[in-house]
Amino acid sequence: MGEPIVSQRSTNRRTRQRPGAAGPMDGKPFRLVRNPFRPLEALSGEQLARIHEASMRIVEEIGIDFLDAEALQLWHDAGARVDWKCQHVWIDREHLLSLVGKAPSEFTLRALNPERSLVFGGNAVNFATVGGAPFYSDLETGRRPGSLAAFEKMVKLAQVCNPIHIVEGLLLEPQDIPVPIRHLEKNLIQLTTSDKVYTAAAHGRDVASDYIHMAAIVFGGLDSVQRQPVMAAVVNANSPLRFDGRMLGGLIMFARYGQPAIVTPFILAGAMSPVTLAAAIAQQNSEALAGIALTQLVNPGCPVIYGGFTTNIDMQTGSPAFGTPEGALALMTGAQLARYYGVPYRGSGGLNNAKLPDAQASYETQMSLWPAVMAHANIILHSAGWLEAGLVCSLEKFVIDVEGLAVFQRMLGGVEVSDETLALESIAEVGPGGHHLGTAHTLERYRSEFYLPFVSDRQNYDKWLQDGQTDAARRAHGIANVLLGEYERPPLDPGVREELRAYVERRKSELAGTG
Amino acid sequence: MGEPIVSQRSTNRRTRQRPGAAGPMDGKPFRLVRNPFRPLEALSGEQLARIHEASMRIVEEIGIDFLDAEALQLWHDAGARVDWKCQHVWIDREHLLSLVGKAPSEFTLRALNPERSLVFGGNAVNFATVGGAPFYSDLETGRRPGSLAAFEKMVKLAQVCNPIHIVEGLLLEPQDIPVPIRHLEKNLIQLTTSDKVYTAAAHGRDVASDYIHMAAIVFGGLDSVQRQPVMAAVVNANSPLRFDGRMLGGLIMFARYGQPAIVTPFILAGAMSPVTLAAAIAQQNSEALAGIALTQLVNPGCPVIYGGFTTNIDMQTGSPAFGTPEGALALMTGAQLARYYGVPYRGSGGLNNAKLPDAQASYETQMSLWPAVMAHANIILHSAGWLEAGLVCSLEKFVIDVEGLAVFQRMLGGVEVSDETLALESIAEVGPGGHHLGTAHTLERYRSEFYLPFVSDRQNYDKWLQDGQTDAARRAHGIANVLLGEYERPPLDPGVREELRAYVERRKSELAGTG
Repeated sequence: MGEPIVSQRSTNRRTRQRPGAAGPMDGKPFRLVRNPFRPLEALSGEQLARIHEASMRIVEEIGIDFLDAEALQLWHDAGARVDWKCQHVWIDREHLLSLVGKAPSEFTLRALNPERSLVFGGNAVNFATVGGAPFYSDLETGRRPGSLAAFEKMVKLAQVCNPIHIVEGLLLEPQDIPVPIRHLEKNLIQLTTSDKVYTAAAHGRDVASDYIHMAAIVFGGLDSVQRQPVMAAVVNANSPLRFDGRMLGGLIMFARYGQPAIVTPFILAGAMSPVTLAAAIAQQNSEALAGIALTQLVNPGCPVIYGGFTTNIDMQTGSPAFGTPEGALALMTGAQLARYYGVPYRGSGGLNNAKLPDAQASYETQMSLWPAVMAHANIILHSAGWLEAGLVCSLEKFVIDVEGLAVFQRMLGGVEVSDETLALESIAEVGPGGHHLGTAHTLERYRSEFYLPFVSDRQNYDKWLQDGQTDAARRAHGIANVLLGEYERPPLDPGVREELRAYVERRKSELAGTG
Repeated sequence: MGEPIVSQRSTNRRTRQRPGAAGPMDGKPFRLVRNPFRPLEALSGEQLARIHEASMRIVEEIGIDFLDAEALQLWHDAGARVDWKCQHVWIDREHLLSLVGKAPSEFTLRALNPERSLVFGGNAVNFATVGGAPFYSDLETGRRPGSLAAFEKMVKLAQVCNPIHIVEGLLLEPQDIPVPIRHLEKNLIQLTTSDKVYTAAAHGRDVASDYIHMAAIVFGGLDSVQRQPVMAAVVNANSPLRFDGRMLGGLIMFARYGQPAIVTPFILAGAMSPVTLAAAIAQQNSEALAGIALTQLVNPGCPVIYGGFTTNIDMQTGSPAFGTPEGALALMTGAQLARYYGVPYRGSGGLNNAKLPDAQASYETQMSLWPAVMAHANIILHSAGWLEAGLVCSLEKFVIDVEGLAVFQRMLGGVEVSDETLALESIAEVGPGGHHLGTAHTLERYRSEFYLPFVSDRQNYDKWLQDGQTDAARRAHGIANVLLGEYERPPLDPGVREELRAYVERRKSELAGTG
């Protein structure tokens, strides 16, 4: 089974809510997480072979749109059949698979704090915040458009919460900042507020270029960034069977500079693919592999991630449905396919349709988190804070989800079996009918042996009544404030900070009026 | 992988909430569930061997209390070393394992409705209601002591909800009925209100005898019941290392009459066992195997179930802690051990410490449900309705949990991979950039292809606002009433019903004044 946790470092000071009480992150150090259990697999070998075969036929016989001249040229030069007018490409399976085979099965993303660098591949599991939410909500101010201030608050919270490995650069959309310069403002906050691994946006060549050049400023230059990647970015296929020019521009830039694209077909079965799950998965597979292959045409051997985001539409409302059994199966099968091709896999961890951080929010979240973790997804996006089909980043949901991730990480530690933990002497000493509360064995270990929750209430009913009959969301609100109080800005060279600011100012003035 | 669902029968009439709307149980037939995926296992082979070895040493060298003269006599007659004064028994491992080896690895429990009979063993997964709650709560009447009326209401709800396989006879405690006759009143309601498999109480010889004789009335006589078992009952060890006289009386009666005891050590690590999980599991294993072995001394080959209920105490409040990472690991390892010994396994599915059906209730529930299902627990008790460390049976939590079980059961159906579901023609026909909403392939399947939720809200925000901004608990309350409106009493021969009533009346008068 081996030791699943390769590193344990408590980086937060203890902050005590009241004398003697533990801080929320006590006993929950930042750790690199590995899933020591065998991956959960939903497909038999024969089923996997049939889905693989169907995907190969899609790529060979039906083909895929690449709406970008450079991408078409790359395919043409590599010998694929290209229809220039329709911007359409057919790829032989041998060609496709030999390209996919060039992608590394494992790589490391460096963090500003080197102790927080992360491995992608194998049984490594890394958890990221929600990304892309246009709205922000908390119990105090309600649901409102995302702002730069809310973005900064959430990055701080993500920095403090040890079970979060990755801060999504698109965490929430600051709608108070014009679109053309939004990525600059967000990335400036990102790089000066958190020292964890982060994701970037790959929305076209220019945005990608800005992310890459800002990374170069803080990570010791473009060469250093190219040699050792520092960020990842989602590149969606416009399913069915199409990559648009904006996403291809980002994909090409990321590949060229050696940063991993997370190639993720955006499939709601019944709308962007046939309604049957097998077809949705086969189509996802063909799109993901085609995108991955393109990164290897640009830059053979560059890191890349196979992304799965397939779920279904709700056939009553037409809305995307999240935390569904179909989505769970798609997550598991995607991981199994990525493993088959030897490429790291991206899943999603906290998907739901709930409007509030209520029971629905949590059971749907778990229906996406469990399959993602158990299928060995290497990067799990949207693991904390997601509400309302991704429209909302919720402060309270974020804290509730962080508790869920901390619980998971503890569970993935497995069972320690040794003479000491089997404690036969202690069992003999207490004997039948006694109790173990005061034994030496217990007293030595009771403070750290069990997970200590910070959102869950374990008081008795009367005490809970006296304490105000809070639900989990109400408690999470208070805990968010405690955690934000623990925030400390990570060190950053003042010269580097100044250079970043100057870059952003220059680009802002270049971009002024382009929106 | 094979076909996981061996039977699908929709037994509820469609009840429409509004014209065109689906009833909550539409598309969620009563089905025998099998988990087609490989079991999730937390122990390596070497770890399992060490825990096995430790348990054998506990039984051989430390020994176990059996506080019952008949049990001691059985052990003595079988050649075990008995200390009559201390009521203590030491059992050689060869002896213990040969007894455990006589227990069947799989058996069937008959239901009054033969289509609802259930298999226990292998990868069969059966879900049971909450059991043993002293309090009942709903959003209308609040939290109050359990009553016979509330018990009957919950049995009706369990009968209607197809994802529930088993109605726990101890569902909630009707505190308005005196203890000595409570089991009679409950069992009378049980047998005349539901036709599903049920659990009974094994609290001493007399209570067990009443359950067995009442079963004989409805299942065609004592011989018939003995030949083919019809109910199971939890028999707890009074951990550490003790079975009390009341539980042993029940265990012996159940074994004698061929009904499966669910031998379940009640361990809160840190109190009833050492604080370390390995010790808790080893001790659980020694107690469970000793109880299982005793059933085989009474009646070799009789069905029996290995029960796991190990979790930890909360070291801050001293309360039992549920839905914990430690409890999840204990659940998984228990299943792995039971599989090793070839005995069906009981887990728990909805454990939590929450006071309300809120986010905490749901994420803790899932932290117990996922490991139970994925570890191949064959019977999952407390799968619906449990709140507040088991003190409360909640109407709304019950409905929310039933949705969770329905989702799980759908997911365990796996992915159907065939030419039809791969739908390459449809993918080719729609082509890049199109959509699949109106294709023939979609139109043929969209009504039934995806799981249709009844608690989860997937409307957009504005529609949800207009509809009263409900949370999941509020919606569950309304759905409970819809479901109760669908209830139909299952057929029962009037003569049988009369005989049951007469039995209960006779026993009530015999027991009058004994409490």
